[in-house]
Amino acid sequence: MENIKVIIWGFGAMGSGMAEMLLKKKGVEIVGICDRNAKRVGKNMYDLLELDATQYAPVIITNKIEDIVKEGAADVAILATDSFTRGAFDKIKLMLENKINVISTAEEMAYPQAQEPELAAEMDKIAKKNGVTVLGTGINPGFVLDLLILALTGTCEEVEHIKAARINDLAPFGKAVMEEQGVGLTLEDFEAGVKSGKVAGHVGFPESIQMVADGIGWEVEKIDQTREPIMTNVYRETKYAQVEAGNVAGCRQCGYATVDGEVKIEMEHPQQILPEKEGVDTGDYIWIKGTPNINMQIKPEIPGGIGTIAMCINMIPHVINAREGLKTMLDLPVPRAIMGDMRDLIQR
Amino acid sequence: MENIKVIIWGFGAMGSGMAEMLLKKKGVEIVGICDRNAKRVGKNMYDLLELDATQYAPVIITNKIEDIVKEGAADVAILATDSFTRGAFDKIKLMLENKINVISTAEEMAYPQAQEPELAAEMDKIAKKNGVTVLGTGINPGFVLDLLILALTGTCEEVEHIKAARINDLAPFGKAVMEEQGVGLTLEDFEAGVKSGKVAGHVGFPESIQMVADGIGWEVEKIDQTREPIMTNVYRETKYAQVEAGNVAGCRQCGYATVDGEVKIEMEHPQQILPEKEGVDTGDYIWIKGTPNINMQIKPEIPGGIGTIAMCINMIPHVINAREGLKTMLDLPVPRAIMGDMRDLIQR
Repeated sequence: MENIKVIIWGFGAMGSGMAEMLLKKKGVEIVGICDRNAKRVGKNMYDLLELDATQYAPVIITNKIEDIVKEGAADVAILATDSFTRGAFDKIKLMLENKINVISTAEEMAYPQAQEPELAAEMDKIAKKNGVTVLGTGINPGFVLDLLILALTGTCEEVEHIKAARINDLAPFGKAVMEEQGVGLTLEDFEAGVKSGKVAGHVGFPESIQMVADGIGWEVEKIDQTREPIMTNVYRETKYAQVEAGNVAGCRQCGYATVDGEVKIEMEHPQQILPEKEGVDTGDYIWIKGTPNINMQIKPEIPGGIGTIAMCINMIPHVINAREGLKTMLDLPVPRAIMGDMRDLIQR
Repeated sequence: MENIKVIIWGFGAMGSGMAEMLLKKKGVEIVGICDRNAKRVGKNMYDLLELDATQYAPVIITNKIEDIVKEGAADVAILATDSFTRGAFDKIKLMLENKINVISTAEEMAYPQAQEPELAAEMDKIAKKNGVTVLGTGINPGFVLDLLILALTGTCEEVEHIKAARINDLAPFGKAVMEEQGVGLTLEDFEAGVKSGKVAGHVGFPESIQMVADGIGWEVEKIDQTREPIMTNVYRETKYAQVEAGNVAGCRQCGYATVDGEVKIEMEHPQQILPEKEGVDTGDYIWIKGTPNINMQIKPEIPGGIGTIAMCINMIPHVINAREGLKTMLDLPVPRAIMGDMRDLIQR
């Protein structure tokens, strides 16, 4: 049987991490990479990953997607370029029209029905017309604050209230993330940044919340979000950020869904650098009030970078096997690590 | 749209619990119940459940399955009668041949491929011939020590070792469970009971272990199981058991899978009455060694009775929607609580 063929579009931290993971797996190969960064275009993937390139055919990075996306060119394309459905839409359309299955890391694509129902319907139509599947996934949205919550409710007769928190450490991340989360700002600058949209915080609460609600059959009346500064009382420093005591170490984002006039879903995602400097333990937490009550914790939290890379790769066989159309993590079998030959997981 | 129609075969703790849960749900109805217990035969389900029967058509319990199992009589039958695939097989066959989907609580049915590959293949064939689906599920096997482990590995690039433990309290259970687990025995009687098979312990480790291994693509070379007495240093008493200090409070069962010459999966399931009497906290624990490491805990453990009841009912829509054949929890979308109309979840 031939290897499963994968195209990667976007070769930043996520895309290159997926390439590294794929190279360790059996029964799968990378047949094309597209990236617009001039430093990468024209380079061999193996050289960029600092791997020995001598024994493999080169995979040269192109900035012209039409060079690599053709009908039958790949079984699946992974799109690691965007956070928003609107930004990813044309790229997804192009790949679907070439009869290539798509997995997107765009946070909104984890449940595009939440904020872009028209684009979701359009993608579903295009995918069905071309006999392929499109899925958005990642660690969050895609797993911790939605799929994992839903899986736990599978053991419940009734659910009354759901609260979940993902407390993580931004220290490993770079400059772009520091700016998005407002790390290092004064209180005034943080508040101005939230207003202007420069402090974007976490993308994905409406998606996670709507996925959970639709998954268990709750009708959401409204979703509210807040973004608050996490002020530090001590100096904190990482490679990309220096934060004076009294300034902002990160952004505490909360999401609330009202169902039947009550807040029934509460999500909290405080993201900051070095939370342990003030005694805060990182972790993923889920508290379900129902029959039975469930209290889950994962300490430390599942790391965001590795988790998103792994989720996208581990979903490849499920996406190839799926019925055609737009799918979400609600529709497909549970993701799992792939330690054998990926081809063994394909239903022919 | 018509209600989803359910038959329940076996009206013990599990079957009657499922009836109670179904009666609280929208879009679903119980159309027949079979049980062999003379105390229940001929009685109205509502009376047995101590519910007001005056406003509903009676559901009379029969001991003749042929009275209720006919082609088109139900969308799904729940079989809550057996622990072993061999014991459940003829019942499952009868229902499949009447074109009724089946959900079984039999522990071995959670992954019949593990110990009964021929019966599994036969059930798959019969189900496909009749265009219906058969699934085995429950809290464990079915969720805690298999599906939940696999879901967490979905966030991993690599998995090196898996350890999981389910530490629970047997206090709510009755006489049959006390005998199966050896509660109240002396050390000598426990050891004799393990040898004779009277102290059966937990049924399901080969199934959970094989499901995890197949799920991530590990080839299991062998599975070993041990059953050890949990001795108590203090007197422990429940409604159905009195245990003197120095005697057996329960059974600690362990399972080990060897993969590539190493033990790579370890499961531990100590079941005893009142573990808190000696400072033992109940809980479900999963430790994955890999990229990344994952440490999960659910404290207290998800209760076994409610959990199994909920899993079976919550999987009804997925089983109706599934492609035909024998399915496992690996093949279907993640279970979730059903707080809306069950009919909304059916893909027509």
